[in-house]
Amino acid sequence: MKLFIGNKAYSSWSLRGWLALKQSGLPFEEIVVPLYDAEWDKRREGDEFAPSSGKVPILWDGEAVVWDSLAIVEYLADKVGRDIFWPQDEAARAMARSMAAEMHSSFQALRRECTMNLRHIYPPRALSPEVTADVTRIVTLWAEARSRYGGSSEPFLFGAFGAADIMFAPVVTRFVTYSVPLPRFAEAYAEAVLNHRFMQDWLAGAQEEDWVIEKFEQAIPGA
Amino acid sequence: MKLFIGNKAYSSWSLRGWLALKQSGLPFEEIVVPLYDAEWDKRREGDEFAPSSGKVPILWDGEAVVWDSLAIVEYLADKVGRDIFWPQDEAARAMARSMAAEMHSSFQALRRECTMNLRHIYPPRALSPEVTADVTRIVTLWAEARSRYGGSSEPFLFGAFGAADIMFAPVVTRFVTYSVPLPRFAEAYAEAVLNHRFMQDWLAGAQEEDWVIEKFEQAIPGA
Repeated sequence: MKLFIGNKAYSSWSLRGWLALKQSGLPFEEIVVPLYDAEWDKRREGDEFAPSSGKVPILWDGEAVVWDSLAIVEYLADKVGRDIFWPQDEAARAMARSMAAEMHSSFQALRRECTMNLRHIYPPRALSPEVTADVTRIVTLWAEARSRYGGSSEPFLFGAFGAADIMFAPVVTRFVTYSVPLPRFAEAYAEAVLNHRFMQDWLAGAQEEDWVIEKFEQAIPGA
Repeated sequence: MKLFIGNKAYSSWSLRGWLALKQSGLPFEEIVVPLYDAEWDKRREGDEFAPSSGKVPILWDGEAVVWDSLAIVEYLADKVGRDIFWPQDEAARAMARSMAAEMHSSFQALRRECTMNLRHIYPPRALSPEVTADVTRIVTLWAEARSRYGGSSEPFLFGAFGAADIMFAPVVTRFVTYSVPLPRFAEAYAEAVLNHRFMQDWLAGAQEEDWVIEKFEQAIPGA
């Protein structure tokens, strides 16, 4: 399998797709396509990535192409077994799937005003009301998942690391980058995600990258 | 199981969740929660719908709650078998899952400027460039799916009616409501979706509703 991803420092959806591949345990080749790179833009306009949207991440597996991070999770779950990604308990799985889907379609303000940037930590500042609402909702979901299904022996949303954690992993990094104050339990969860060996791998890769894209470097949240 | 949905005339995400339930073949009780209704808003602000987002559709199944239409599809696929919702062929399923996910996260302009309204057909008018781009992308995806995997004996995106059709069903109704010109193959596909017995049921329900919500009645696409 081949996974096309964007810059590790900036591309939050790529991080999700990549974590899903790592979680599957299957071997894959990783191809970095710098965002806003003229050569790649030209290749995207051609037929090379059809019928995908041309946006990273894109997974190629023989004839199969999967061009969305949540679809990549489900595609891989079909291959290696659902339990690698989702809780076994039905009610827990219902909640994990709902949270992953809500992350997939929502939190536009947070995504717009606090773009992912793994090479910076900005000082704390006032967040817009829309970002504040997104943060509150996310922390509430984390609290519900942890208290209902997290258990005490494992630090992740539904116990073991899985698809819900994968979907929220870029949000964890945003909370660090923008010094968003978190309740104690959420800080502990964020720390567990950042210390996961897959995340450590990705973060090291982001540090090694040379690209600097002004658009993401200038992103400062708040009014 | 209980499914909370919004007004049938206006609530496109409810239509997706409801079609998924019908497709599963499982019995369910349907509870209509009128959008922007003061009583329901009050109940939503309470704990009644926690930990869901409070937005319809919401599926309750004993202890399990599923509050997103794509999550409802996967939850039901777990219960009744993946093949009821997704193609059996791996490459076809990769594409179906990618298309469903793209519908889930994208096409904001179409969704904003051409809200679903099953009780009107507006005369054709110029669409904004953003809506035009969304329409082009959707029709391209339909063409790819139909030509690669549709087959000649069945009219739907991947042959038999499934999750990809469920996700695009509200878009089909928008193309009718806003008299969006379509290529011949896409017209045939749209007709097949509208004539599906589940859609006929839902459309009849929409006609019987009394609610008129100005916000949706005034929606006129284009500049």
